[in-house]
Amino acid sequence: MISSTVNPRVKNIVILQKKGKERRRQGVFVIEGRKLFEEVLRDVPEAVDEVYVTESYLSDESRKASLAAVPYEVVSEAVMKVMAETLEPQGILATVRIPEYDKDALFKKEDAVWVALEDIRDPGNLGTILRTAEAAGVTGVILSRDSVDMYNPKVVRSTMGAVFRVPHFYTDDFLTELDRMKQTGAMVYAAHLSGKQYYDEPEYSGRSVILIGNEANGLSEEASEKADCLVKIPMEGRAESLNAAVATSLFVYEAYRKRRNRK
Amino acid sequence: MISSTVNPRVKNIVILQKKGKERRRQGVFVIEGRKLFEEVLRDVPEAVDEVYVTESYLSDESRKASLAAVPYEVVSEAVMKVMAETLEPQGILATVRIPEYDKDALFKKEDAVWVALEDIRDPGNLGTILRTAEAAGVTGVILSRDSVDMYNPKVVRSTMGAVFRVPHFYTDDFLTELDRMKQTGAMVYAAHLSGKQYYDEPEYSGRSVILIGNEANGLSEEASEKADCLVKIPMEGRAESLNAAVATSLFVYEAYRKRRNRK
Repeated sequence: MISSTVNPRVKNIVILQKKGKERRRQGVFVIEGRKLFEEVLRDVPEAVDEVYVTESYLSDESRKASLAAVPYEVVSEAVMKVMAETLEPQGILATVRIPEYDKDALFKKEDAVWVALEDIRDPGNLGTILRTAEAAGVTGVILSRDSVDMYNPKVVRSTMGAVFRVPHFYTDDFLTELDRMKQTGAMVYAAHLSGKQYYDEPEYSGRSVILIGNEANGLSEEASEKADCLVKIPMEGRAESLNAAVATSLFVYEAYRKRRNRK
Repeated sequence: MISSTVNPRVKNIVILQKKGKERRRQGVFVIEGRKLFEEVLRDVPEAVDEVYVTESYLSDESRKASLAAVPYEVVSEAVMKVMAETLEPQGILATVRIPEYDKDALFKKEDAVWVALEDIRDPGNLGTILRTAEAAGVTGVILSRDSVDMYNPKVVRSTMGAVFRVPHFYTDDFLTELDRMKQTGAMVYAAHLSGKQYYDEPEYSGRSVILIGNEANGLSEEASEKADCLVKIPMEGRAESLNAAVATSLFVYEAYRKRRNRK
């Protein structure tokens, strides 16, 4: 049992919780809680790296059963409190390998719907976008390098497990990535306040990319120029814009609605 | 100039920032920042109560101009830091009277769309719901008493000013309020995982109420029973539910879409 809070493995978890750079360097991130842990085991068991549990967590037989197939380390309550980001840790925490995807194969998918995020900064927004993307059957998500880190504990929590199920890629060259998608025949729809069409007008048939900008500044001019059309969401009252996760949700659900109606 | 952090008015602001009960007792809440302050002045000038600014805020002539018509108190930077909830205060903070509305008149509005929230707990969700409600032309929002306080600083911030523009009421008896709305001929559509229809099937004509439940538990059975129909949002993959603000947004924007198309 690990009972020292200065144990190097404990210290490493604390660093992984805080630093995106370390997560990228080591290729792992931290998840907390039984629900998320059991989702990883079910959806991507090969991604599980290290598992830490408290004795009181193990005292429940049903929880112990789900740990049968994986090696784990028992830690004291005090150590768990240090490692955990949540204020009331649930007694289980694990490191999980950052997923990798075959981008070329995914880009070739017919009738795919992609979401491309330029500099989304709020962890809750990114988590909610991934959660909604899964529900709306989105093929994958492309993120500019300056977007918030998907493996930030707050993002991971708010994806509700979608982080393990929705393919996603960070790119150093967002504009080139948009060009690559266009070369596969994808139409790029940019969410834009000066859009000429409403979001419920396009058919979103064939490969589609829904392009969403930063919360405060919207899309850069360079990214907007890559769009085949600028599309807006109508707004009443004095509302100047919508929350980025809400805007994305309206777009992906409208694309999903059109696709369901075509079937 | 107020330069003492133990000044009773300063202490009262700190209490108002923290305690919903005090906000309700005094009938005021706190707003921060130039943008929100100028929105209050424009939309509900009569609601402005006390205004506090720092000297450096006043040093900008354009800011000073917007203060011409209201009495204000200058406070030191240290006092502002104590009063403000945000980490980097913008130099202006005000108390604003909690709005009151004529519920009976609003209930009589033809073709109204209402959102009824049962025990929404997350401040960010409530703020986002109000912001989207304004944009989708929602008539008003009804909240069960156990929902998060609309005048919580985090909620106020995330409404982006909609808190001053979208009528809303807390009710001690949520179920009776739903009955009252039904008596005006309103149809109640409950967002429910076991819905028989999809959210894009109803026409949402006439008076409509969109009923949304708690983030973790959904709607209570009692509230669900008040619904004329249970309506669900289709979901792909392993997604079990959507974020409450996203679900509400999809409903209110679908009702808005139907109304726009009828025109």
